[in-house]
Amino acid sequence: MSSGKISRRRFLQNSGTAAALWMPHRVNGYTQQELLSFFDEEGMRREISKWELDTPCLCLDLDALEANLVHMQETITRNGIASRPHAKTHKCPTLAKMQLQTGSIGICTAKVSEAEVMFQHGIKPIMMTTTNVTPTKIKRAMGLREANPEFIQATDSAQNARLLSEAASSLGITADVVIDIDPGGHRTGISPGKPALELAQLVDQLPALRLRGLLCYDGGSQHVKGFSTRRQQTLERMLAATETFDLFNKNGLTTEIFSGGGTGSYNIDHETRGLTDVQVGSYVFMDAQYMDIGGLNNDTQYTDFDPALTILTTVLNDQYPGRCTTDAGAKACTVNRPWARVKGETGLSYSSGSDEFGTLRYEDYPSRTYRVGEKIELIVSHCDPVVNLYDTLYAVRGERVEAIWPIAARGMSV
Amino acid sequence: MSSGKISRRRFLQNSGTAAALWMPHRVNGYTQQELLSFFDEEGMRREISKWELDTPCLCLDLDALEANLVHMQETITRNGIASRPHAKTHKCPTLAKMQLQTGSIGICTAKVSEAEVMFQHGIKPIMMTTTNVTPTKIKRAMGLREANPEFIQATDSAQNARLLSEAASSLGITADVVIDIDPGGHRTGISPGKPALELAQLVDQLPALRLRGLLCYDGGSQHVKGFSTRRQQTLERMLAATETFDLFNKNGLTTEIFSGGGTGSYNIDHETRGLTDVQVGSYVFMDAQYMDIGGLNNDTQYTDFDPALTILTTVLNDQYPGRCTTDAGAKACTVNRPWARVKGETGLSYSSGSDEFGTLRYEDYPSRTYRVGEKIELIVSHCDPVVNLYDTLYAVRGERVEAIWPIAARGMSV
Repeated sequence: MSSGKISRRRFLQNSGTAAALWMPHRVNGYTQQELLSFFDEEGMRREISKWELDTPCLCLDLDALEANLVHMQETITRNGIASRPHAKTHKCPTLAKMQLQTGSIGICTAKVSEAEVMFQHGIKPIMMTTTNVTPTKIKRAMGLREANPEFIQATDSAQNARLLSEAASSLGITADVVIDIDPGGHRTGISPGKPALELAQLVDQLPALRLRGLLCYDGGSQHVKGFSTRRQQTLERMLAATETFDLFNKNGLTTEIFSGGGTGSYNIDHETRGLTDVQVGSYVFMDAQYMDIGGLNNDTQYTDFDPALTILTTVLNDQYPGRCTTDAGAKACTVNRPWARVKGETGLSYSSGSDEFGTLRYEDYPSRTYRVGEKIELIVSHCDPVVNLYDTLYAVRGERVEAIWPIAARGMSV
Repeated sequence: MSSGKISRRRFLQNSGTAAALWMPHRVNGYTQQELLSFFDEEGMRREISKWELDTPCLCLDLDALEANLVHMQETITRNGIASRPHAKTHKCPTLAKMQLQTGSIGICTAKVSEAEVMFQHGIKPIMMTTTNVTPTKIKRAMGLREANPEFIQATDSAQNARLLSEAASSLGITADVVIDIDPGGHRTGISPGKPALELAQLVDQLPALRLRGLLCYDGGSQHVKGFSTRRQQTLERMLAATETFDLFNKNGLTTEIFSGGGTGSYNIDHETRGLTDVQVGSYVFMDAQYMDIGGLNNDTQYTDFDPALTILTTVLNDQYPGRCTTDAGAKACTVNRPWARVKGETGLSYSSGSDEFGTLRYEDYPSRTYRVGEKIELIVSHCDPVVNLYDTLYAVRGERVEAIWPIAARGMSV
C-alpha cells in the first residue's frame, strides 16, 4: 500500500504524541523513576528499544499505524464518505485524537463508560452505538450529554425513547439520538422499514429528544472471506437500511447521519446509498482474524492495512524438542482464533490456550528457533479484546519506543 | 456438600472483610460519593442489593466461597497435606488473606508482578511457580526477596540457577528456590530424575541460593473427565516427581516443599507420596469448565465446590424471537468454552462470542424468558481469565452487597 499524500510524520506532529506521553505508576520492567530518566522535558524518549521492555507487553508500530490512518482516510474520501471510528477497538484517547486530527468526523463508543473516559480526555464528537436501557446507564448518558453537546446516543425501541426523553427533560436538555437498525443479525436494533420509521417519528415528536438519523452496523459481514462474497453480502444486508433511509426522507425526518460499516467493508460501504460514515475500528491495528479475509486485490490475504499491534513475549523454557514456552498465554493474548502469529517468521505456530503460558511449536521448516530469554513478536489474534487486557500501549518507531499511551478505557465494559 | 466444622460466619469475621472494604475511583453505576453513603464507618454496607449494580460486573457469593474454603481445608487436612493456593486465579489480596487465615500455608503466584502486589498488600508466604529468566524479572524477584524473606521462587535450568545466585549475591542475600519439575507436558520445568537432581545439587552448592524442595504442577490432568480416569492419570504422571523426591532425599537434599496438584486433583494428590501441599486455585470460585469434570461421588457433575463467581448482565434487546441480547460479551466473559451458564435456569444457552454483546437463546423448554432491562446471573466459563478482566469483586451475601474487593493484581501478566 502507498502511504499517500498525507505525510506520516505529519500525523504524529499534529496529533501531539509527545504531549500525550504519560507515565503509568508501574511500567513493565522499569521503575517510574528509571523510565522518567529516559525522557527529556518534552516527553521525547532517548534510548529505550522495544526489545528492552519487560514482557508480555503491547506494542504499536507507528509507521504501520500512520499508513493505516492515511489509507483509510484517502479511500473513504475518494469514495465520498467519512469515518467515525469505533473507539471500542483501541480504548485509547491518544488514538482517538489522532483519528479526529486526521479527518474523522467523530468517534463511536460501545459503552457509556468508554464515552465518559473519552470525554474526560477532551474528545467531544462521540456517538454511542449501544442503547442505554437501565435507569443507571440512562442517567450516566444524559449526564454526559449535559456536559458534552456533541454526544449522540442510539435507541432501538419506543419504550426506550420515552425513557430517554424523560431523563433529558428532567435535566432540562435536548438529547441527540440516532435510530439503531437491525441488519438482520437480531443482535441489537429495531427492524428496518415501518418499525424504524415509527420509532424515528416518535423520537422526532418527543419533547426532549432531537433525531439525528440512523445507524446500521452489520458485524456479521465484516469477516466474510473473499472480497466479492463480502461485497455482495454487505450490500444486500444494508438494502433494508437504505430503504429505511428513504422512508425517513419521504417523511421529512433527518438523515444527517447514516452510519454503518467497518474495517471489512470500508471500501464497499459507499455503495450503500445514503450512508454518511463508516464505523471502522480494527484498521488502525489489524489482526490475524482480518488478515485472513482477503481484499480487493488479493483474495486470500487482506493487505489493505498493515499489522501494527503486536505482543512482545519472552521464551521461558526451551528444553524440549519441537517447541518452546513463552510468558504470553490467554491472559496476555486471549483465546480468540486464529491464534496469534509470529511476526515475520514462517513454519511456527503459536497458541495461547494456557492461562499463563504460550506455546510456540516448530512445525513446517521453521524459519528459526528460539532460546530462553529471547523475545518474540506476535501479531494479535483479535485486536479489540487483546487491547482490553492491557493498561498501556508502547508506541514504537522501528525499534525505538517513542511514547507510552494509556489505554484509558481498558476494562470499561459498563 | 457439608459446611463442616469451621463456621462460615467465623471465616469472614477472622478475615476482616469489613476492614478490607475499599472504594474504587469509579464503581459501576454509582458515583464514589453515592457508594460511600451506603456504608457506615466500619465499612459495612447498609442497603445495596446486587440487582442494583450496574452491569456487567463480577459478584462473589460469600456463602459459597466460605463453604468452598471449608471443604478444601477439611479435606486436605484429613488427608494429611496442606494447601498453598494459587493467587493467579483470584488476583485479590483480600481472598489471599482469607486463605491464609483459614489454614493455607502460603500462596502461589504465576508472575513476579502478582507477587509484588500481594506483598504490597501485606502477604508474605509467597511461592512464585514460574521461573524468572530475564535480567529485568530476576532483578524484580530478588528485590522482592530482599524485602520479603518468605518469598520463594522456582528455577528449571542450571543456567538460570547461576543467574539467580549471581543476582542474590549482588544484593547480599540468600534466595529461596524450588526446582520446577516437568510432569510430562513439556511446558515448564526440568525433566525429573537425574536432570532435576543435578539442578538441585547445583542450587544447593551455589553461594547465594537456598534449596527448599520441588514443585510439579500437572495442569493437563486437572480437567480430565471422570474421577477414576483423572485419579489414574494424576497419580501416573506424578510418579516421576515422587522418584525425584526420593532422589533428593537419598542425596541429602531438602524436600521440605513438594508442591503440586490443583482443584481437579485436590482429593487425589495426597496419594502422591511425599507431596506436601496442593496449589489449588479455582476451588474458591468454581466455573463451568470444572463443573463438567465429574467428582468422586458424581461422575458427570463436579459438585465438591459451589459456583461462587458470577457475572451480572442486563438484557439490552428482546425484540426478536427465541433470543435476547445482553451487555456481557467477550470483553466481560472471555471466549473460553464451555460458555457461561445462566445460574439456576434451564433450557437456555448463553454465548459471548461477540466482543460487546452476549446472546441468550431459548432452546430446550426454557425455564423463563427475559425482558429489556432485566438482569441475568451467569456462572463464569473459566474463572482465571474472567477475573483478569475486572477491577473489583462485589462480595455478596444472599442478595446483599457486603463489600467491594479490589482485584489488585488484575492485568499483572508481567
